[in-house]
Amino acid sequence: MRSVTYQERHIGPNEHETKAMLKAIGVSSLDELIQRTVPQGIRSKSALDVGPALSEREHLDNMRALGAKNKVFRSYIGMGYSGTILPPPIQRNIFENPGWYTAYTPYQAEISQGRLEALLNFQTMTSELTGLPISNASLLDEATAIAEAMHMLYAARPKELNDAHKFFADKGLYPQNIDVLKTRCAPIGVELVVGDVKDFDPSAGYFGLALQYPALDGSVNDYRTIVSNAKAAGVRTAVCADLLSLVLLTPPGEWGADVVVGNSQRFGVPMGYGGPHAAFFCTTEEYKRLLPGRIIGVSQDRRGKQGLRMALQTREQHIRRDKATSNICTAQALLAVMAGMYAVYHGPDGLKRIASNVHAMARRVAEGAKALGYTVANNSYFDTVTIGGVKDANKVKAAAEARSINFRYAGDRVTIALDETTRPQDVDDVLAALGEAIGAKAVAVKAEGSAVPADLQRKSRFLTHPVFNTHHTELELQRYIKRLENKDFSLMHGMIPLGSCTMKLNAASTLLPLSWPEWGSLHPFAPVDQTQGYQEVFTQLSDALAKATGFTAVSLQPNSGAQGEYAGLLVIRAYHEARGDHKRNVALIPSSAHGTNPASAAMVGMNIVVVKADAEGHVDVTDLKAKAEQYKDTLSCLMVTYPSTHGVYEETIKEITSTIHANGGLVYMDGANMNAQVGLTSPGEIGADVCHLNLHKTFAIPHGGGGPGMGPICVNDKLKPFLPGHSVIKTGGEQAVHAVSAAPWGSSLILLISYGYIRMLGGVGLTDSTRYAILNANYIKAKLEKHYPILYVGSEGMVAHEMILDCRDFKRAAGIDVSDIAKRLMDYGFHAPTVSFPVAETLMVEPTESEAKAELDRFIEAMIGIRKEIAELENGKADKADNVLKNAPHTNEEVCGDNWDHAYSREKAAFPVQVTREWKYWPTVSRVDNAFGDRNLICTCPPIEDYMTVEA
Amino acid sequence: MRSVTYQERHIGPNEHETKAMLKAIGVSSLDELIQRTVPQGIRSKSALDVGPALSEREHLDNMRALGAKNKVFRSYIGMGYSGTILPPPIQRNIFENPGWYTAYTPYQAEISQGRLEALLNFQTMTSELTGLPISNASLLDEATAIAEAMHMLYAARPKELNDAHKFFADKGLYPQNIDVLKTRCAPIGVELVVGDVKDFDPSAGYFGLALQYPALDGSVNDYRTIVSNAKAAGVRTAVCADLLSLVLLTPPGEWGADVVVGNSQRFGVPMGYGGPHAAFFCTTEEYKRLLPGRIIGVSQDRRGKQGLRMALQTREQHIRRDKATSNICTAQALLAVMAGMYAVYHGPDGLKRIASNVHAMARRVAEGAKALGYTVANNSYFDTVTIGGVKDANKVKAAAEARSINFRYAGDRVTIALDETTRPQDVDDVLAALGEAIGAKAVAVKAEGSAVPADLQRKSRFLTHPVFNTHHTELELQRYIKRLENKDFSLMHGMIPLGSCTMKLNAASTLLPLSWPEWGSLHPFAPVDQTQGYQEVFTQLSDALAKATGFTAVSLQPNSGAQGEYAGLLVIRAYHEARGDHKRNVALIPSSAHGTNPASAAMVGMNIVVVKADAEGHVDVTDLKAKAEQYKDTLSCLMVTYPSTHGVYEETIKEITSTIHANGGLVYMDGANMNAQVGLTSPGEIGADVCHLNLHKTFAIPHGGGGPGMGPICVNDKLKPFLPGHSVIKTGGEQAVHAVSAAPWGSSLILLISYGYIRMLGGVGLTDSTRYAILNANYIKAKLEKHYPILYVGSEGMVAHEMILDCRDFKRAAGIDVSDIAKRLMDYGFHAPTVSFPVAETLMVEPTESEAKAELDRFIEAMIGIRKEIAELENGKADKADNVLKNAPHTNEEVCGDNWDHAYSREKAAFPVQVTREWKYWPTVSRVDNAFGDRNLICTCPPIEDYMTVEA
Repeated sequence: MRSVTYQERHIGPNEHETKAMLKAIGVSSLDELIQRTVPQGIRSKSALDVGPALSEREHLDNMRALGAKNKVFRSYIGMGYSGTILPPPIQRNIFENPGWYTAYTPYQAEISQGRLEALLNFQTMTSELTGLPISNASLLDEATAIAEAMHMLYAARPKELNDAHKFFADKGLYPQNIDVLKTRCAPIGVELVVGDVKDFDPSAGYFGLALQYPALDGSVNDYRTIVSNAKAAGVRTAVCADLLSLVLLTPPGEWGADVVVGNSQRFGVPMGYGGPHAAFFCTTEEYKRLLPGRIIGVSQDRRGKQGLRMALQTREQHIRRDKATSNICTAQALLAVMAGMYAVYHGPDGLKRIASNVHAMARRVAEGAKALGYTVANNSYFDTVTIGGVKDANKVKAAAEARSINFRYAGDRVTIALDETTRPQDVDDVLAALGEAIGAKAVAVKAEGSAVPADLQRKSRFLTHPVFNTHHTELELQRYIKRLENKDFSLMHGMIPLGSCTMKLNAASTLLPLSWPEWGSLHPFAPVDQTQGYQEVFTQLSDALAKATGFTAVSLQPNSGAQGEYAGLLVIRAYHEARGDHKRNVALIPSSAHGTNPASAAMVGMNIVVVKADAEGHVDVTDLKAKAEQYKDTLSCLMVTYPSTHGVYEETIKEITSTIHANGGLVYMDGANMNAQVGLTSPGEIGADVCHLNLHKTFAIPHGGGGPGMGPICVNDKLKPFLPGHSVIKTGGEQAVHAVSAAPWGSSLILLISYGYIRMLGGVGLTDSTRYAILNANYIKAKLEKHYPILYVGSEGMVAHEMILDCRDFKRAAGIDVSDIAKRLMDYGFHAPTVSFPVAETLMVEPTESEAKAELDRFIEAMIGIRKEIAELENGKADKADNVLKNAPHTNEEVCGDNWDHAYSREKAAFPVQVTREWKYWPTVSRVDNAFGDRNLICTCPPIEDYMTVEA
Repeated sequence: MRSVTYQERHIGPNEHETKAMLKAIGVSSLDELIQRTVPQGIRSKSALDVGPALSEREHLDNMRALGAKNKVFRSYIGMGYSGTILPPPIQRNIFENPGWYTAYTPYQAEISQGRLEALLNFQTMTSELTGLPISNASLLDEATAIAEAMHMLYAARPKELNDAHKFFADKGLYPQNIDVLKTRCAPIGVELVVGDVKDFDPSAGYFGLALQYPALDGSVNDYRTIVSNAKAAGVRTAVCADLLSLVLLTPPGEWGADVVVGNSQRFGVPMGYGGPHAAFFCTTEEYKRLLPGRIIGVSQDRRGKQGLRMALQTREQHIRRDKATSNICTAQALLAVMAGMYAVYHGPDGLKRIASNVHAMARRVAEGAKALGYTVANNSYFDTVTIGGVKDANKVKAAAEARSINFRYAGDRVTIALDETTRPQDVDDVLAALGEAIGAKAVAVKAEGSAVPADLQRKSRFLTHPVFNTHHTELELQRYIKRLENKDFSLMHGMIPLGSCTMKLNAASTLLPLSWPEWGSLHPFAPVDQTQGYQEVFTQLSDALAKATGFTAVSLQPNSGAQGEYAGLLVIRAYHEARGDHKRNVALIPSSAHGTNPASAAMVGMNIVVVKADAEGHVDVTDLKAKAEQYKDTLSCLMVTYPSTHGVYEETIKEITSTIHANGGLVYMDGANMNAQVGLTSPGEIGADVCHLNLHKTFAIPHGGGGPGMGPICVNDKLKPFLPGHSVIKTGGEQAVHAVSAAPWGSSLILLISYGYIRMLGGVGLTDSTRYAILNANYIKAKLEKHYPILYVGSEGMVAHEMILDCRDFKRAAGIDVSDIAKRLMDYGFHAPTVSFPVAETLMVEPTESEAKAELDRFIEAMIGIRKEIAELENGKADKADNVLKNAPHTNEEVCGDNWDHAYSREKAAFPVQVTREWKYWPTVSRVDNAFGDRNLICTCPPIEDYMTVEA
């Protein structure tokens, strides 16, 4: 008898339930349903073959075997990635806790107050450490963060610098930062100049400059004069800073920087061979409406109580399309939460102890090296010591590697970056290796005092807020974490039916290996021969993704879907350029597209031409043909989502793609809806040339409460040569474009999740996942279409893996907005579907294959219940102003309050269905006032006396 | 600068808080407080030296290095321990989740409904699989369970068998089961006869017999005739059964067994080199008031809603002292929860698939061995095949070990027990080893059909309840687990200030290694040379515990405090016997002792003589001296707790212990209050000869929601030779008493926790833990003594690490019982302290060293708030019948209900203090009616239609 398979654990409906659901839909079999849903012309000719499905145990055995092929050396490479100690209570209670990692992005503020508070802590921490008042809730990595800073400063340059198109990067920047700056500057017409900042002339057509602090060689330089001279000329400064160093160093915000970015990884987040980690982005009040990414802000709720929310959210639909200066619409929420919690746990004094220890170790290395006869190239440093004039660096390397130590090597220089994990015996080993290379024996040396210049030593206080000065024992920290966790709705509570976001199961078996040191402790720039376990995963994963997309090559580098879009378009651009087709810069984009599509196209310098939609919401093929024809000489590409963002498999897709090809363009496919394709059809078969994949949607990486994600791109042979390279570790094709991420393979650590997902499902399981995703969606449709109009359906009346419930009429008849429905769903114990995308005042519902029938029925019951509540307004039974919908969500405190003056009962508010009496999820604040928060942007922890209630 | 130490994470008050607390107490320093609390005469002469304190990271590195010294072979040893697959969602969401493992025993039913339901699932599962209607919520291990069965059947034997003192054990029992039966039979005057059950003559003075099903060699025998003949003669049958086999075999309950016991380990619980695992105990209605341990039962709450509770709880104070037939007062709750959840996840069909696979593998091994020319000794089997007449078993052993395989060897027999983890390739390896031993090559053979005799194949259905047929996908299971978790109050929510139970921090860093296979996957009877990592831990841990207790030798075998008591008394008994002092069988026990003390003494055949307490609650030394003198010829020992169960360091302790010694007795010290001794004094220094330690109290093993625990004993040189042995793996002294546990080192896996705790605190940290435990207790005392009388204090007005709040007067003045206060504390967001022990109508409060001042203050605020509510009754402001105390706890559903007809407001009920508005823990049922539940004992899942509400 067959053991229970992973597939049985992953897919919701069992055989018995499937039958009942098919009956409700009115089809006789799952095959029939698929046949009536997915157009025959695009169906895959052969079954998806990604090897046999492993059991969970076989997968874990495999991960142990592969992990053993990674060599965990002590890393002194530095360059933005440092050894760190993940505090065990944070590991167990956040990193390994599905209550945290399965939550969605906190768009629904009322059921997200826990992680919003944790992210506000992160913002407060980065703001105070950098010395700048405004901070966001994280970006993808340091390299993209400095590139975002460049773009922001460019877009916001003063009028007098209208003709300034040059950006200066000091050669002390990490090479990966320079590399991504190169990537981002060229397409938008900015000239990147790399040089020694000492020679920087601000009047030579520059709008900004970038510095690394401390610099690549470890030196701590005083940039005050340079920065103030630049500012006098209207030129602004962005600094890449090491967060831990800022505990001891004068922060850039205090010496004139306009933007400070960096990586928060060394605040307790495993290096993970490149990520995921949370980069930060801090700036001045001047730029507070311009900074990229999300900002968590403080506002108040309907009852005047403080409520947190995303103040500036750059969701797809909020992206300013072709006027955007950034396509970023995600963050590294889980990692930002961890880094912030690391600061909460250690507090300012603990951080000082850690930073001082690191510095003391660096002092010992420097003095020890000098005693051996080496020359230390940098007099000032925090944690990084560069030895110059090394006669035979290879000997040093051999001696180091024999001790399982990695240094950084560049010509006759050997750089050694210490970190929190460095112990005195490690310093002894470092010095022993240095000694052996020159036949000398290390001796004990004194290394007192500081190597930080006196006038760059930090004087200002930081992290004075109580939250950083209370939870310093493990019990206190755990309880704080649990209190925040319990405020948030996650997949542990129920379905999160978000259209286009595919909140499927994130299986524990795929996540367990992330905690193992053989996967977590590798530096992204470790020699590739030490990372063979990872390399095998990359090869197998790339192969599977290529097969699933019908393509031939993959880049795992992009760290998000939007970054994948950007990378895909860069590759298209490079293709045309390589052919001498320099004029091809028009991107056709359907009106229904995700906002990121035009934003990404704009960022690679394309001109956007919008294609209309027809009455059924489909791409208007006539319009498309006309425009393809019109721009045939300049057509670069079409960007298209499939199935469409309207949740329908368009029958015309092949006609569309061949029209583009016939006019010299390529087809970029947005992978957001790949969960409706895998195994049944593929971008390759539909006629695309490149697509990105949201591994955090289709391939089961958890959303982490708002990130991390991963957005690899898959391409055909035409585009393969141009896949992104990397300045430190070779990746990509022979004609590789510059890097889009700081790390060669992006957030490698979480690639393990998608790898496990694919290995355990196999081709059949992946295909069945798609089939059941379609089943679940059509079951909801069948049950709800009597109550809510379904906006778009396919030719046989079916939806794809998601559907749009049309709520536009309720406004007129009942005064109800779609957001009232979204908030009322919280009272029923649900997270809302996607609100007002892609069509305003509608809900887009995507149940995924992982939900069982019982959960779908619970959701259906809730939606029907709400429809009845709307009917009570339509027929005048309920009060227009004071009703369960307008006042939703209801908090525990309100319903338990002595004063209840609503027109409806407490029980109607709190227990609209029986199951909510058995277990009830309570929003912790009433409806949050967005306008109030927008008017009063506060993005760091407010003083404690304000913490209880905010006065308007 | 020093890095943050583990001690700083473990101990609650920081320097600043400590100062404020000392001031409140009225002492100038911690030293002064200790000096005024702990009598000078017993203070340790030298500092506790257990090596330097490791950091958390150093500890984890050490555990990896030690773990690498354990060799994880594939185990086919069987004998009650089998390889199993812990389902990843159960691993992550229960085993590794402090929300589950830091909960206390569910004495407070209203805030424990989650684990009560999970334990009811366990009871239902074991009941249905064994075919018997009554089941308990787990026992320590299979060997003690069969011994408990023996004792129960002996105590309950029919009148006509009054003179029957013989118990028969079939030689097919596992040797460790026979061994523990030997231990338990002799002291109570039962003669254990081991033989072939075919020759059993029930009329020869027997009251019971024990069988193993399947038997040691794997055979599945039909015992129907034997059992019915026995029953006809009044002789009852207890069966040790393999739980997974019962999926395929006719359960013993269907062929006449009166008791069925066994180990549930193979239902997803790691072998852990011996434990912890949950044993089960099932029986007939006839014995439902007699069975040992805890039973979870169904009752109803104040408002008529179904509520679960412990129906028959054998807490210390409920133990029937010297009339007890069992001293068991704990369970293996966490492991029972896991095993029950394994059945919930797999359901009846999944279990059938697993059992059938295991059987199919056994068939292949048997037929393959035959094809090689071996003789299979057992024709019938489930998972265990014994090969007989092996010419050279050493060759088999060599061939097996070369393949990292362990078989079981006994003379010319080789036994091979398969399990859930056995794959076809493993069977190939097994056969290859067998082949190599005789120079033959294994060939493929057919192995169809069943080796279970036709009339012993299971026909009856099992696990038909919806709970076993619903949660079969990972999402559904996770949500079910989370719903249960969120019903329960754990250390994640707040302090659990239980007197004598020491609910301190259970640090993540001590628990992480438990998930690593090199610690979890070892069979307890694996060759010792494969377990060197464990052996080093045992050696170091024993050494540290010996130092902390002032003794010289340690037995790690006892699985609970009560079992430690029993082992300690056995050792005392053996000491006297070895000296020819056969008459020494009197145990002096103070009246304030834990109920387990007299129970344990009775179980080793001692006569109990009670020593009086004086007015201050101390041992009455005059009475003690008189009784020691009176029984000087028969005095075996004194059993004493120190500091006393009244929370005071008695000044006379040394006088007491020397009096006992002077009269030929030894001193047994109950280790319950060791958290007030470690580093400051020790049992050895006080004059004891032996003590047990509750590692789950003093040494930081989490309580697991009601187990596991560990109760090692420490002894001086006199007693060392008698420490418990083991029948399979040698342990203990040269004159070792028989085993008290099934496994040689008890629940080895959780010893790692105490090991980590000790390693990371070091001697200073351990001592400081004691000092801060005393500080925290005296701070609460100082703050509460104005509001509640403190029942006993030391000579300088201090309490030890806990205190008794006297609530006896409230009954008269306000009609309030202590249980009303306990329930009202839930509304304030607290777990109650210990209720009515050791003095009726009092509360015993022990805050432990791990609580920070803020949490103590929150508790103090709650207690003062409740005192004011009592005052409102005393002065007539509140209604005697309808008040917040009598109606406590208040559920969410009640407070949110449309009908509120209480004499007080909703907010007064739900939000008695401000912090409960910020975050509120809600009991999920109102006060549970114990009497109703006792009258209607239901200990399996009730039918689903009854699940919502129970009618009286």
